[in-house]
Amino acid sequence: MSAIDDLVTELSRLPTIGRKSALRLTYHLLRQPVEQSRRLAQALVMLAEKVRPCPECYNLSEGDRCPVCADPRRDRTLVCVVEEASDIPAIERTGEFRGLYHVLGGRLAPLDGVGPSDLTVAALVRRVEALGVQEVIVATNPKLEGEATALYLQEQLRPTGVTVSRLARGLPVGGDLEYADGVTIVQALAARRAM
Amino acid sequence: MSAIDDLVTELSRLPTIGRKSALRLTYHLLRQPVEQSRRLAQALVMLAEKVRPCPECYNLSEGDRCPVCADPRRDRTLVCVVEEASDIPAIERTGEFRGLYHVLGGRLAPLDGVGPSDLTVAALVRRVEALGVQEVIVATNPKLEGEATALYLQEQLRPTGVTVSRLARGLPVGGDLEYADGVTIVQALAARRAM
Repeated sequence: MSAIDDLVTELSRLPTIGRKSALRLTYHLLRQPVEQSRRLAQALVMLAEKVRPCPECYNLSEGDRCPVCADPRRDRTLVCVVEEASDIPAIERTGEFRGLYHVLGGRLAPLDGVGPSDLTVAALVRRVEALGVQEVIVATNPKLEGEATALYLQEQLRPTGVTVSRLARGLPVGGDLEYADGVTIVQALAARRAM
Repeated sequence: MSAIDDLVTELSRLPTIGRKSALRLTYHLLRQPVEQSRRLAQALVMLAEKVRPCPECYNLSEGDRCPVCADPRRDRTLVCVVEEASDIPAIERTGEFRGLYHVLGGRLAPLDGVGPSDLTVAALVRRVEALGVQEVIVATNPKLEGEATALYLQEQLRPTGVTVSRLARGLPVGGDLEYADGVTIVQALAARRAM
């Protein structure tokens, strides 16, 4: 049946949803009031129509600028660089960061064909110069490619004279030393602090 | 941001998709061409508009009757009763069953408030009488509630004089005796056949 097959095909394009899960979700929707499918469809259309990258920081935005850039109370001398817009809510939830963001749009990954020109590095350098930014906090993911990207950013930002820092490495709070990986323990030892 | 939050909320209404997965799916869609969200939305709308229960067997249908009921080559004296329309593709894929289906719309589950009047049992009895069905194969799930439902169906169908059978229980083909549960082994022993 084409309507069912079509939806299964579209759902299984999504990551982590295989054909079997897509079929299960489709049958689930068929057991719900049709309003549920319509609301989901409407939300998808609205997403496609409304959400755009912020012209300043490339965060997701529904207006001209994103809510962070549009907020006059944010500290414009402090910029936190993240790989993806989806990293921002994790930091915002802490309520501890009052600066601006900059979304790279990925990380350097030569094997996947992602080079510097695919990221918003040039725009970051321009922003740092134009805004008179004092400090750039690099919050790329603590993985090999994220680290390489951090080093590349540091190099690109050097001519601007801005302070470049990055998030601390160490044992996650609530984590278990017994189960921590060796690399994390080495970093936690190296960055140990006097009590 | 409302468009993102709305989609996350709608996606997390789906089974097996929590808020975190919904957020991940939403960000994934935002990285794809907008056409992908639109096609998914369109497939959902089509599902809501086109798919209806077959008036004869309650299978899912896009036309008047479902493809099985509409197929003149199907054996109309044989009816296989399943809990959900989603069970039918599993049987159809075998290519071994040439009769019709009947979708109950669930199984008896007093704890969930599902009683006989919530299932299509009365319609099944009427069909058996009207079509002159010779055999009803009960293919409810081999679980407690499915078994109870099978016994209830047998009782309701007794006055019609139709033969009522149910799918065999035993070790799954390709399964491992070592890992089979005790109840399955007991059923496989009781239903053993001479070689």
